[in-house]
Amino acid sequence: MRITINGLSCDILIIDRLVIDFYYIKIDIIIIMKNKNISKIGEFGLIDRIKTQFTNISTDRNITANIGDDSFCFKSGKNNICITKDMLVEEVHFKKEWISPQELGKKSIEVNVCDIAAMGNIIPKYVFIGLGVPSKTPEMFINNLYKGFKKTCDKYKIAIAGGDIVKSDRIVISVTLVGMGKQEVIKRNSAEEGDLIGVTNTFGDAGAGITLLYKHGIKYKYNKAQRYLILKQNNPKARLKEAWKISEYLTSLTDASDGLYISVNLLAKDSKKGAEINMNKIPISSNLKKVFKEDKEQLNFALFGAEDYELVFTVPDLKAELLKKLIPKISYIGVINSSNEIRYFYNGKEQKIKYSGYKHF
Amino acid sequence: MRITINGLSCDILIIDRLVIDFYYIKIDIIIIMKNKNISKIGEFGLIDRIKTQFTNISTDRNITANIGDDSFCFKSGKNNICITKDMLVEEVHFKKEWISPQELGKKSIEVNVCDIAAMGNIIPKYVFIGLGVPSKTPEMFINNLYKGFKKTCDKYKIAIAGGDIVKSDRIVISVTLVGMGKQEVIKRNSAEEGDLIGVTNTFGDAGAGITLLYKHGIKYKYNKAQRYLILKQNNPKARLKEAWKISEYLTSLTDASDGLYISVNLLAKDSKKGAEINMNKIPISSNLKKVFKEDKEQLNFALFGAEDYELVFTVPDLKAELLKKLIPKISYIGVINSSNEIRYFYNGKEQKIKYSGYKHF
Repeated sequence: MRITINGLSCDILIIDRLVIDFYYIKIDIIIIMKNKNISKIGEFGLIDRIKTQFTNISTDRNITANIGDDSFCFKSGKNNICITKDMLVEEVHFKKEWISPQELGKKSIEVNVCDIAAMGNIIPKYVFIGLGVPSKTPEMFINNLYKGFKKTCDKYKIAIAGGDIVKSDRIVISVTLVGMGKQEVIKRNSAEEGDLIGVTNTFGDAGAGITLLYKHGIKYKYNKAQRYLILKQNNPKARLKEAWKISEYLTSLTDASDGLYISVNLLAKDSKKGAEINMNKIPISSNLKKVFKEDKEQLNFALFGAEDYELVFTVPDLKAELLKKLIPKISYIGVINSSNEIRYFYNGKEQKIKYSGYKHF
Repeated sequence: MRITINGLSCDILIIDRLVIDFYYIKIDIIIIMKNKNISKIGEFGLIDRIKTQFTNISTDRNITANIGDDSFCFKSGKNNICITKDMLVEEVHFKKEWISPQELGKKSIEVNVCDIAAMGNIIPKYVFIGLGVPSKTPEMFINNLYKGFKKTCDKYKIAIAGGDIVKSDRIVISVTLVGMGKQEVIKRNSAEEGDLIGVTNTFGDAGAGITLLYKHGIKYKYNKAQRYLILKQNNPKARLKEAWKISEYLTSLTDASDGLYISVNLLAKDSKKGAEINMNKIPISSNLKKVFKEDKEQLNFALFGAEDYELVFTVPDLKAELLKKLIPKISYIGVINSSNEIRYFYNGKEQKIKYSGYKHF
């Protein structure tokens, strides 16, 4: 099956998570398909239905970042209140054989903190945790899951604001996180021509990690470099402090939950700009280089591997060096231009990059 | 099986929705049990697990209403931001044979608006709609469901802030609603000795409506009075304007989603007070009287029937008449006292009221 969304064309049998852009609205659509039979309520049907219903976007002037950005934000007094909602579904976003319940609890909070970090200088404050669990789930699993929630909430000083538990046929973790900050939020749609495109760290590890798990499962005797990649998959860390440090200099910002390719696309397209990416500049960890030796493989993970949760941002040329002093791990991988296309170069030669949607399960 | 929660003791086979109060934390727990076999992950297990994890409640001074109130609220500038999250699960909160998809969409928003109304003078602003749907759900169903969401959002001028759709084994509607207001929020725990206990309208209709549906299904030839009761079950209206009108005079406030008995209990217990209720004063609609002729039946629906979504509040004696001028449908059903028990009187004679948990499905 072939679909085209936002100018991205991809072959898919199983769609994981798409950010669908229609009119001025984007809605996260998660579609789970257990097998190759596209069920009657196909993704297009769903999208069309929502499209018809929600075309009248609010003109509320207090809204500072709307549906489709990493968080929904609005002004209240001098504060920006940012709210993000993310769902982790068993067999779609995780397999419980491959991640410990405590890691899963931690990750559920981290990925939401990441969406708050992607708005700039915002402090995560309050969380609502909704949990769906099958009846046969062992007590220990839930106990450890909550330990994970708690640990990460404590780490960020996030207070529990509410939650509910529902019996369901598979594990569903639905987290709503509320953040607050006095600074302006940094949106996706404000990159300027000539801005450099920066990233906070290496890309591809998390995608490589899950690929290893697919190949060998969890019980395999992994070497140190391989274990590092799996750790990066299961234990993402939100770049919150990094966001706080640099946000005042940025023109646009997002996180890379869906892979670098999609992040760059979002920043450029939402800003109605184009970009040139120098693939040789995309930072790759030494561990990824050890485990997957070919450049092409490494870059494939970096662009399409998803779940790296690094920040992807644009910054005026003049401020780029200052940012590297603040966060030495920052790399610049390209530049925003006034075209409306995103071109990739490798060893000076333009590459045809085709979106290869990352298949989960 | 017999459980005791908050001093309420009840016989249950199927637990629908319990507000569990431990330490200073309350968490809505929804447990679905299809049959009499209490699954291994019983409700006590769950409660205990959460208890162990979330005993350290935040001391954040910006929090103006914490977990356990109808909404979670915090200060931002001069505003109170209130957030409520509710989940409607097929076969627990509704049967799709008994309610039209559009009614279901409307109801999902209304019940959340109701939780915002229960905080006083708060304006519902932004909504996140999470939807779980089985793959075989007809397009028309989802289309009409969204029409329902949209209609009620438009009615209250609520903007859609985000949403996700997940394929699931049964319909799950998870709504997060954000409200904002400049006035202080009215909590559950601030009733004073001598305050009158008021309600905004009649009780028992919604519970009677679902009882009819259980008995006869949806296709039965109902008479006018019966149809009214079913309409009250399927089309609740949040008492938002009523809350705005009277909140400045109130000492405590909640909604009656779980029945009048539980609401009165919450207001009195959370305020560390007691109450006397005059059951003859509980307002019963003429339609309920027509369909269920015995006083005892009517009062049973009023106290335990749930889903009436009326406001239940306390107000100083001196302001009681003023409120009745503002909203003529208000009735006063009792008085707060300094004891720690809630006593029910009928025709001047004390009644032993035993909580008979309302069974859904």
